[in-house]
Amino acid sequence: MNKIDQKIVVIGGGTGSFTLLSGLKQYANNITALVNMADDGGSSGLLRDELGVLPPGDIRQCLVALSDASQLRELFNYRFDEGTLKGHSFGNLFLSAVEKMTNNFQDSIDLASKVLRIQGTVLPITTDKSHLVIYDENGTKTKGEFKIGQMDFGKIRRPKIVLEPKAKITLAAEQAILEADVVVIAPGNLYGSLAPALIVDGVSEALKETKATIIYVCNLVTKPLQTDDFFVHDYVSEIERFIGAQVVDYVIYNTDEPTPAMLRKYSNEGEFMVEFDLEKLSHQQYKAIGLPLIATTLISEEIKNADPIGHSRSLIRHNNDILARELVRICQL
Amino acid sequence: MNKIDQKIVVIGGGTGSFTLLSGLKQYANNITALVNMADDGGSSGLLRDELGVLPPGDIRQCLVALSDASQLRELFNYRFDEGTLKGHSFGNLFLSAVEKMTNNFQDSIDLASKVLRIQGTVLPITTDKSHLVIYDENGTKTKGEFKIGQMDFGKIRRPKIVLEPKAKITLAAEQAILEADVVVIAPGNLYGSLAPALIVDGVSEALKETKATIIYVCNLVTKPLQTDDFFVHDYVSEIERFIGAQVVDYVIYNTDEPTPAMLRKYSNEGEFMVEFDLEKLSHQQYKAIGLPLIATTLISEEIKNADPIGHSRSLIRHNNDILARELVRICQL
Repeated sequence: MNKIDQKIVVIGGGTGSFTLLSGLKQYANNITALVNMADDGGSSGLLRDELGVLPPGDIRQCLVALSDASQLRELFNYRFDEGTLKGHSFGNLFLSAVEKMTNNFQDSIDLASKVLRIQGTVLPITTDKSHLVIYDENGTKTKGEFKIGQMDFGKIRRPKIVLEPKAKITLAAEQAILEADVVVIAPGNLYGSLAPALIVDGVSEALKETKATIIYVCNLVTKPLQTDDFFVHDYVSEIERFIGAQVVDYVIYNTDEPTPAMLRKYSNEGEFMVEFDLEKLSHQQYKAIGLPLIATTLISEEIKNADPIGHSRSLIRHNNDILARELVRICQL
Repeated sequence: MNKIDQKIVVIGGGTGSFTLLSGLKQYANNITALVNMADDGGSSGLLRDELGVLPPGDIRQCLVALSDASQLRELFNYRFDEGTLKGHSFGNLFLSAVEKMTNNFQDSIDLASKVLRIQGTVLPITTDKSHLVIYDENGTKTKGEFKIGQMDFGKIRRPKIVLEPKAKITLAAEQAILEADVVVIAPGNLYGSLAPALIVDGVSEALKETKATIIYVCNLVTKPLQTDDFFVHDYVSEIERFIGAQVVDYVIYNTDEPTPAMLRKYSNEGEFMVEFDLEKLSHQQYKAIGLPLIATTLISEEIKNADPIGHSRSLIRHNNDILARELVRICQL
């Protein structure tokens, strides 16, 4: 199968983008990943705090996903597990070292792209240093993506979510969206990964202005204490709330049922399959496409090796080959 | 000037090897650097202690010296100066991450060699984990290269120096010496860098057996509290004591005088120019070649950038171009 040349922009960061990009690069030549910059947990958080750099973790995952250099892919995701380096993945140290050395985050991505021989382009959606902040109905503030990831939203559904200080889209990211043929909003943590990309100043304007087809790939499972009872259309409505406009043209969601054994594992973790309401989906301004999207193996070896962290976070993965083929099909419509 | 094809092996590690290799690669195609594995101070020491890896620092310097990839050279020598990463050079983290990932130190050198696009080969002289140990005349033991580097030798001159446990030369290092046309013993810390390479089991045998011309490049300045009153012939006699045989064919030493201002700087640090006694040198079994070897600038920008640590350790450097040309001349005799 020949690769398509359409300009595809993928917005997200983290394991969802990693999975989607790993599949998509088999079918598409011209991919640009736009990555949220709000991560402040783990290795990225420590590097932010100690070195004052931008968070490298999600950028690293997207770079690795688009890389063909097998040993270096593995090295970039290698995580030290002893001593004072414990928890740092090598790729994060690479990106932060170059940023400190040149005082320029883009240099670090450029050099890593060269070393990893990546197909495509990885760009931070903003290079402004800011933190994700959620306000509950009483105006109580919770600051930081990591902390927000642990929150029990309780009765605050669809919370007010902002970046503090405000962050502005980079010129390169804006151009990528404006020139794209297709924009894919990747699956991923709704409040932790997608919101901090979509609420960046200028992203909404670019998504409204672009002639690109906009596709949202819905998550497979809910996030405990945050999106427990969300249906597919709830996810889309949150995505469009972040953007501030009804711009989504297609939604791709899963119709597959996991095995009972798999299902038990999830429910033990408080995760449940995202359900869909065909009646509701048929009345939206977007077109909803249901597909059997669960990867047949729990986690493919490839992803397990390249993404040890993602592995420990969630058990289920998109079948990235079926997903990629569907994205390519839509690109060619 | 065409590069020569003779097989040149350089034994050492550290700043002396870095300087020599940086110059020599401009004139020679076939260089193999054999590196001592006894470093246990600073970043290398911490990585040894915490991760159980082999010391990467001297290997890193030789890789960088033989690399043409300017930005990656700089990155490999970039040293974090804040937070928990403080003191680690990026190249050390690269080498240790690959070693931990593959459980094979040679893999780390191979991958770094590829990434840095090095000309030539860098090999550890041994891959046995051991520490440098010095015994004084009372049999009191001092263990560790870093500690030994700080010692006041006082009246223990020419101390008994061993590796504990014993370390054996690797097959690759042995073959390199046996097949070499020329073996260069690089300038460097006599007890901290050269001894731990030369006293490795099998090195002496290989140096005795090889048909290669053996050249020793003597240090420019003495090391306070250890070699204060050493003449050139004293350095050679220590080198041959480590090897256990009179194998040196040529000694290259400096005849240049530094400027009075430079001289004052050194003497403030307790360092003095290594003196030579022409009468004594004329009666040795080796041929002694005196040359004006002091670099005209204190430190060339190139070395300063690529070797920030070396920079802080000593002010004076070999003029590596004159030195390289002389080595090439001897290769062609």
